[in-house]
Amino acid sequence: MNPLTVLKIGGNVIDNPTALTRFLTLFSTLAGDRLLVHGGGKVATEVARKLGVETTMVDGRRITDKAMLDVVTMVYGGLVNKQIVSQLQVLDCNAIGLTGADAGVIKAQKRPVTTIDYGFVGDIIEIDSGRIQSFTRENMVPVFAPLTFAETGDLLNTNADTLASAIAVDMIFHNDVTLVYCFEKKGVLANPDDESSVIGQLTPAQYADHKTAGTVNKGMIPKLDNAFAALSAGVKRVIICHADEVPAALSGTAGTTLTL
Amino acid sequence: MNPLTVLKIGGNVIDNPTALTRFLTLFSTLAGDRLLVHGGGKVATEVARKLGVETTMVDGRRITDKAMLDVVTMVYGGLVNKQIVSQLQVLDCNAIGLTGADAGVIKAQKRPVTTIDYGFVGDIIEIDSGRIQSFTRENMVPVFAPLTFAETGDLLNTNADTLASAIAVDMIFHNDVTLVYCFEKKGVLANPDDESSVIGQLTPAQYADHKTAGTVNKGMIPKLDNAFAALSAGVKRVIICHADEVPAALSGTAGTTLTL
Repeated sequence: MNPLTVLKIGGNVIDNPTALTRFLTLFSTLAGDRLLVHGGGKVATEVARKLGVETTMVDGRRITDKAMLDVVTMVYGGLVNKQIVSQLQVLDCNAIGLTGADAGVIKAQKRPVTTIDYGFVGDIIEIDSGRIQSFTRENMVPVFAPLTFAETGDLLNTNADTLASAIAVDMIFHNDVTLVYCFEKKGVLANPDDESSVIGQLTPAQYADHKTAGTVNKGMIPKLDNAFAALSAGVKRVIICHADEVPAALSGTAGTTLTL
Repeated sequence: MNPLTVLKIGGNVIDNPTALTRFLTLFSTLAGDRLLVHGGGKVATEVARKLGVETTMVDGRRITDKAMLDVVTMVYGGLVNKQIVSQLQVLDCNAIGLTGADAGVIKAQKRPVTTIDYGFVGDIIEIDSGRIQSFTRENMVPVFAPLTFAETGDLLNTNADTLASAIAVDMIFHNDVTLVYCFEKKGVLANPDDESSVIGQLTPAQYADHKTAGTVNKGMIPKLDNAFAALSAGVKRVIICHADEVPAALSGTAGTTLTL
């Protein structure tokens, strides 16, 4: 099957215009079919503050009331997404910005209220992988904002790591998929204080050991859980690397490659 | 050739959630290929005010400095566009939200500074009508925000009436095109104070007479200029009607139809 690379960039890259341009320049040179999933960054929090909308985080997740949903729709779906798309267009990369609502590609349901009411937060229930493939087949490069939609017509805020993993998993019916989580570190580190201690290959057993030892910290755990879940579900390769080292990581000389 | 209906809705519909839902419900039931161009509405002005960005209008056009460009990118490209798309999805209309940057469909250039510097305002230079047709052919309904992009990578604010007219004109190479401007009046009125005085058919000579008589007011002139220009350029039908009367206007029993 045709290879497809699914890349995810997070807030640390988005918040730094120089780092973002550097990443997008690398992204535009990658060979073959690819798509990008981006997170939010601090702009949403800043816009919310100026608009008088209070930001509440629980366990690193944003509580999304109606006012905050409007803010993330503006910032993720409008500002961040369209700035990435227009930068990529100038780099001769035919990007098309999408939320889950566009062409109905990613349906979700509002997360049920248990002990915490996350508000307008979506858990993915269906991805139209055929439609996504039709974009790549027609030489477009989908750029996803972390927004899905429910059959009620509500847009829903969805974690970008989870979204990238879910898209990668659904695309295995059409492509040999590589999933790359790009962030501000050089990979999974054996010693969190030493950027040169990148673990080249990580198995589930080693991951368990690192969790026990406390080497893998809180923010990395949901990322690695998503990453190993994608690998178990049939994604061919999962890589965690620095946003500046994507080509090297894809050729196996940088970052952390997960193995089963 | 296959018929295509290009509809434009403006701020008055967008600012009124009930009117917008009523329009989108009608829009979703229209037969055949169609696409929607939406304007901005007062939300952008309101968001700008809360963010401390000053709104300057000259001759009814917004002056778009960098801060205002970010606001319209958020509001037009994010909030308004995605709310329309998600409402249409629920109505079983497979909408896809687009700015000119997405898939590179509408290139523009920053308007040259003469006596007035409009800032980040775009004059359209190229429309990829083949790409737009490929969306409709794959059963998607493009929903355009009034944003284009320049080869510098800048998004540009573009008047929605002009955008709708330009798209309609470029689509004549692929479709028999009908262009419909929907607004809050029942059509072009012979007497501006009398909603029952709709002019059923309007020729350029009659338009000239109404301008001389002052019956056609300031805001209507650029709209009608765009409309007649589209007709002269090969658009089959141009209609101006109330947003609630689109089906009747398309069947010839409401609104104003322009003729040459």
